[in-house]
Amino acid sequence: MIEITIIGSSGAIPAYGRFPSCQYVQAANRYFLIDCGEGAQMQMTRFQIPYHKIQRIFISHLHGDHFLGLMGLLFSMHLQKRSAELHLHAFKGLDDIIITQLKCSNSSLNFTIVFHPIKEGSTQVIYEDDALTVETIPLYHRIACSGFLFKEKPKPRKINKERLPQGILLQQIIALKDGHDLIDANGIVSYKNEELTLPPPPSWSYAYCSDTAFNLTIAKQIDGVDLLYHEATFMEEEKKKAIETFHSTTADAAHIAIQSNTKKLIIGHFSARYRDLDPVLKEAQEIFPNTSLAIEGQTFKIGS
Amino acid sequence: MIEITIIGSSGAIPAYGRFPSCQYVQAANRYFLIDCGEGAQMQMTRFQIPYHKIQRIFISHLHGDHFLGLMGLLFSMHLQKRSAELHLHAFKGLDDIIITQLKCSNSSLNFTIVFHPIKEGSTQVIYEDDALTVETIPLYHRIACSGFLFKEKPKPRKINKERLPQGILLQQIIALKDGHDLIDANGIVSYKNEELTLPPPPSWSYAYCSDTAFNLTIAKQIDGVDLLYHEATFMEEEKKKAIETFHSTTADAAHIAIQSNTKKLIIGHFSARYRDLDPVLKEAQEIFPNTSLAIEGQTFKIGS
Repeated sequence: MIEITIIGSSGAIPAYGRFPSCQYVQAANRYFLIDCGEGAQMQMTRFQIPYHKIQRIFISHLHGDHFLGLMGLLFSMHLQKRSAELHLHAFKGLDDIIITQLKCSNSSLNFTIVFHPIKEGSTQVIYEDDALTVETIPLYHRIACSGFLFKEKPKPRKINKERLPQGILLQQIIALKDGHDLIDANGIVSYKNEELTLPPPPSWSYAYCSDTAFNLTIAKQIDGVDLLYHEATFMEEEKKKAIETFHSTTADAAHIAIQSNTKKLIIGHFSARYRDLDPVLKEAQEIFPNTSLAIEGQTFKIGS
Repeated sequence: MIEITIIGSSGAIPAYGRFPSCQYVQAANRYFLIDCGEGAQMQMTRFQIPYHKIQRIFISHLHGDHFLGLMGLLFSMHLQKRSAELHLHAFKGLDDIIITQLKCSNSSLNFTIVFHPIKEGSTQVIYEDDALTVETIPLYHRIACSGFLFKEKPKPRKINKERLPQGILLQQIIALKDGHDLIDANGIVSYKNEELTLPPPPSWSYAYCSDTAFNLTIAKQIDGVDLLYHEATFMEEEKKKAIETFHSTTADAAHIAIQSNTKKLIIGHFSARYRDLDPVLKEAQEIFPNTSLAIEGQTFKIGS
């Protein structure tokens, strides 16, 4: 299961109590942050999210509303005696920003930041462990910008207990779960794997795409994704403004969801011109009905 | 009159909905900000404070909880099409922090920042106009740190209309208000100033002292101040911690208020260990009764 909690849903100018972009992600006992807009630490405290658990932070791009909460979070982790390494995935430059601020405040953190620079322009797997992978999604914005695709690895097949012959050994169970056939002492296949096992539960996937102009080329990479967060800074009446500023509209986000066979869409990064978000939601739902607003404090769960 | 609105009252780790240090100051149609902790722009929006009016920002020191809201505020001013110059008084280094972040986000602001570096270690008048002065208060912290003393200039004497002789000219009125005697055509004093005027209304003064270890030497500079904001990060039971970290306790702040003949004291910069601030207030009031807590959104007014 992956759980995504919305920490900030605002566009560049925070308004109506909405904070800039940030999401807290829990999956298979991993704890991640995607973007870290100003006030992220206060929002996490407000929602009782234990930010000391965060192991990796993924920053999409170096516009202020996506990273200005990072330095405060690092200082608070330091003051709370964090010692565990923190991995930071971002475009080059964020390391300079951190170093300059540490230098000016005559501070050094009591934990190590491992900085992983993101390469511009191509899809890369930037994190992998035994449960999941994270790959970059090249986005199309005014500066280098990357989305992130979180994918659970295929899980082991399930043993069909009703069909299991007696006297089976533990290593044979493991081999069956891994998809191998059952082989007897003579090296002969005694049972085909599919005779004794059931398909594994489906693996989840989650794509985060912000900020970006409408860009259909991402649809192929995120095809079939369970959950897509896509920015929808503007409504359709501001289409021209969206194009000028390399942002998306509600309809853009909904079209990406359709083209990528997304199961569920969340829209966010709302412009400060929208106090009431109901019309924003309605406009996206007219094209892609299974759309939700990114509401701060709300958690979206997928998988099992 | 000077009005000080508390934007943030928290110590280094924001907690219980309290935000890091920031105050909005209005005086004689001037609009200032003192410190600019993370989230300052969101707090000002929340309290309906028109941050576009701010002309000068005074940053006490380069610990994150006193300046990390600045960059977001600058970006929002930019996006809201500010064109007026913004004056920034801070220790050297903050200019590098701003430049590094503008460079990494490939941005340039559409207004000019005039950076006024503060000199360390001595009192200086860093701003003066026809209504007020602002001078630095050297504080005693882990890095270079300065408080700020806002002082209204003496106002003109008031004309005592009941005693005013007939046929008096406008330039004579102006001369009287400025404290001069009334002189006849022969150059002889016809009326002493005090015969025709009343003393001016008193001028206000406000001192902001954060962050600082207990440091009695400031009492002389701020003697007789109408309002003193003094940090009180800790209660007395944490005196040792206060000394180690170059912060003050409730009693330290109250003693500074007594020694400087302060009329009213506000305490703030509360440690995250204090959810309930009533005991913090009570401890200060036992020594200096006219003490208030810095409560976010609350405005303190002095003068007329």
